[in-house]
Amino acid sequence: MEKHTHRSESNKHELNNRLRKIEGQVRGLQKMIEEDRYCIDVLVQISAVSAGLKKVGFQLMENHTHHCVSDAVQSGNGKESIEELMRVIKQFSK
Amino acid sequence: MEKHTHRSESNKHELNNRLRKIEGQVRGLQKMIEEDRYCIDVLVQISAVSAGLKKVGFQLMENHTHHCVSDAVQSGNGKESIEELMRVIKQFSK
Amino acid sequence: MEKHTHRSESNKHELNNRLRKIEGQVRGLQKMIEEDRYCIDVLVQISAVSAGLKKVGFQLMENHTHHCVSDAVQSGNGKESIEELMRVIKQFSK
Amino acid sequence: MEKHTHRSESNKHELNNRLRKIEGQVRGLQKMIEEDRYCIDVLVQISAVSAGLKKVGFQLMENHTHHCVSDAVQSGNGKESIEELMRVIKQFSK
Repeated sequence: MEKHTHRSESNKHELNNRLRKIEGQVRGLQKMIEEDRYCIDVLVQISAVSAGLKKVGFQLMENHTHHCVSDAVQSGNGKESIEELMRVIKQFSK
Repeated sequence: MEKHTHRSESNKHELNNRLRKIEGQVRGLQKMIEEDRYCIDVLVQISAVSAGLKKVGFQLMENHTHHCVSDAVQSGNGKESIEELMRVIKQFSK
Repeated sequence: MEKHTHRSESNKHELNNRLRKIEGQVRGLQKMIEEDRYCIDVLVQISAVSAGLKKVGFQLMENHTHHCVSDAVQSGNGKESIEELMRVIKQFSK
Repeated sequence: MEKHTHRSESNKHELNNRLRKIEGQVRGLQKMIEEDRYCIDVLVQISAVSAGLKKVGFQLMENHTHHCVSDAVQSGNGKESIEELMRVIKQFSK
């Protein structure tokens, strides 16, 4: 069964606004390739999209730590929750 | 005026295949947020999308160095071309 | 006044063993430069040192979250502690 | 047999000055561990050392591309040289 996290409507709205912007940028990258745009310009745009994705990731990580991890610590299940968080942080900073 | 890079059809095809896959993954992320999927699962998926984007970036960088930078070096304009490449590499490894 | 963290002797021992190894590698890099060793070989060695430093960082981060952050959450001061952790994670993944 | 790169004295001097500073910072980190300094302060300092190492790496990479890679391209051996450079860039941006 899939695990879930309850998110507030305003939080979902903000995250999905950012993700829709990123989706648009990825479509823009396809157009740049199609139009033979200069490699360096495409690479600069890819960096911008990566930075945007990282921001979404950090926002999620921050919410997760303030809510899920804190709750787990308070109910005595902090250990696994923190180990799981650390694994994802390591993967993220690759 | 915009600068251009001539890409082969097979090269464009491969790059845009990857970008379309990434676009689909970004839409998948929005669905995960909508469905309140567990933060850690969303973060793992964001890492996968970032890794995919990096691959597209490295492929472009490699083509660019083999073609544009090599041509510039051979026609005596290597200096600016290499400086431009280094700037984008630094930005990319942030 | 400086803040402190109490570390166990075995923990200090392990961290400082790693740091002493890194110190030796940095001295080795200076020798490579002195001896005009091939750039690519020096760069590969720099990557190894960076990876070693990151490992020390993740070990510290993990200890910090399991102890200091958990304690703060349990005593009701989790918010600032988590914000501080997130700032350092962002800086770290640059 | 080891490959070599000829570096100017001023270039060696600058690189080794930076590396000596980094060596001192790594010794400073050991002292921070010994003195039970606060984890977050140690982590901030580790980030600074990593950033210093990255700078040395980029400087080497830049010199390497301006000299070794350019020479290889001009003498018709650019392909291998660029592939080698790309491998190290990928390793570096991990």
